[in-house]
Amino acid sequence: MHFTTTRRLDDGVLEREFTLGGVPGLLWTPTSAAAPMPLILIGHPGGLRRMHPRLAARGRHATAAGFAAVTIEQPGAGDRPPLADAERARADLQRALRTGEPLDEIVDRLVLPLVERAVPEWRALLDAVLTLPEIGGPVGYSGGVIAIGLRLAVVEPRIAAAVLFAGSYLPRGMIEEARRVTVPVRVLLQWDDEGNDRRLALDVFDALGSAEKTLHANLGGHTGIPAFEADDANRFFARQLRPQNV
Amino acid sequence: MHFTTTRRLDDGVLEREFTLGGVPGLLWTPTSAAAPMPLILIGHPGGLRRMHPRLAARGRHATAAGFAAVTIEQPGAGDRPPLADAERARADLQRALRTGEPLDEIVDRLVLPLVERAVPEWRALLDAVLTLPEIGGPVGYSGGVIAIGLRLAVVEPRIAAAVLFAGSYLPRGMIEEARRVTVPVRVLLQWDDEGNDRRLALDVFDALGSAEKTLHANLGGHTGIPAFEADDANRFFARQLRPQNV
Repeated sequence: MHFTTTRRLDDGVLEREFTLGGVPGLLWTPTSAAAPMPLILIGHPGGLRRMHPRLAARGRHATAAGFAAVTIEQPGAGDRPPLADAERARADLQRALRTGEPLDEIVDRLVLPLVERAVPEWRALLDAVLTLPEIGGPVGYSGGVIAIGLRLAVVEPRIAAAVLFAGSYLPRGMIEEARRVTVPVRVLLQWDDEGNDRRLALDVFDALGSAEKTLHANLGGHTGIPAFEADDANRFFARQLRPQNV
Repeated sequence: MHFTTTRRLDDGVLEREFTLGGVPGLLWTPTSAAAPMPLILIGHPGGLRRMHPRLAARGRHATAAGFAAVTIEQPGAGDRPPLADAERARADLQRALRTGEPLDEIVDRLVLPLVERAVPEWRALLDAVLTLPEIGGPVGYSGGVIAIGLRLAVVEPRIAAAVLFAGSYLPRGMIEEARRVTVPVRVLLQWDDEGNDRRLALDVFDALGSAEKTLHANLGGHTGIPAFEADDANRFFARQLRPQNV
């Protein structure tokens, strides 16, 4: 883990850019919190530079609750080399959305390889970040891509809770994978998300094997998640990751 | 409004029993809050005496956020004279649930007359309670019977927000009524509620005409609403009924 830039933000938050195995990432820590802190993984659709304002807002919001927050670039996105298969699948998806062709096979081609590539990177990120003295876990996953969050919740025992944003295409076969999730989960669903299959999102929520799971559905499109959900996600993670303080 | 009993509960809450036009009710007010307070109507399936511990807990919880809270007995329930038609419909419903007969016609017979009777009583309750100097509104409706909460939200302009518990039978025709609701609404759904139609609950949420609406679905049966939902309902009502303080 190689830190390249450090910024002290004016609200008592340290924002550090880093690379890990050539993958760029961002780490936010409160300058005054008691260490070691729990850690939130900030999931996103890819494009760290383009999404920086929104990611930084989410990272800073997590630090306000005493968490460290970290994210890395997605495979094939932002400054990383593009992935030819993924580009092709994305183009096929756009065409299928215009023509009304079935999506399932294209979604599998687009998302499954992404999950296979991204999940080991997030796990390597955990290995690296948890060696920092100020960060101790436990770890929560927050956001999209829901397929990555689901797979991580299944295979990575250090993930203790997840807030999954059901706002991206999910291979239908991953519903079976959802049954193997056992950590507490909050699913966020934008009721009128144009790029989302509401029924599939409800099926995934239904399938989750967790003894504690909550669905929060809000009116509005993909980017319209109400601000109070961010506060409530912090409360959810505080209950799950730091129960002695709640 | 005739107060019959006053109890000062040990956490600084006044619990008053009253009758209004012969209908028994309960009013909870914090002894130390700044008046005039917003008011929460505590909805329930009927049976004030049987449900008193749970109702009192909900009333006290609302006072902790600086609200007054009030409820009245349902028509035909508790100490009120039974309603022959409702008793018959209830028996028919139990039989239909055993035999697998269709429910729609029975639910209409059971719930629609209850709504017609109860809604004017809740409105008369509002007339009476809002004359008390310590209570000023605005007013929120919280709980079941969802059909009563929906109708009140449509016809009673003093209702400014509602937390509706989708845990009771709803006449299918009232989906159309849901389209006329415009106040902010939170719908609580217990995902595995044995006495509830999940699909219908989702259809009602979808139909609600409110510009702000959120669905909170939690794992578990009818009585398993997690405790954190009560805290979150208080925050919802604080945002909606007392926005200057949030």
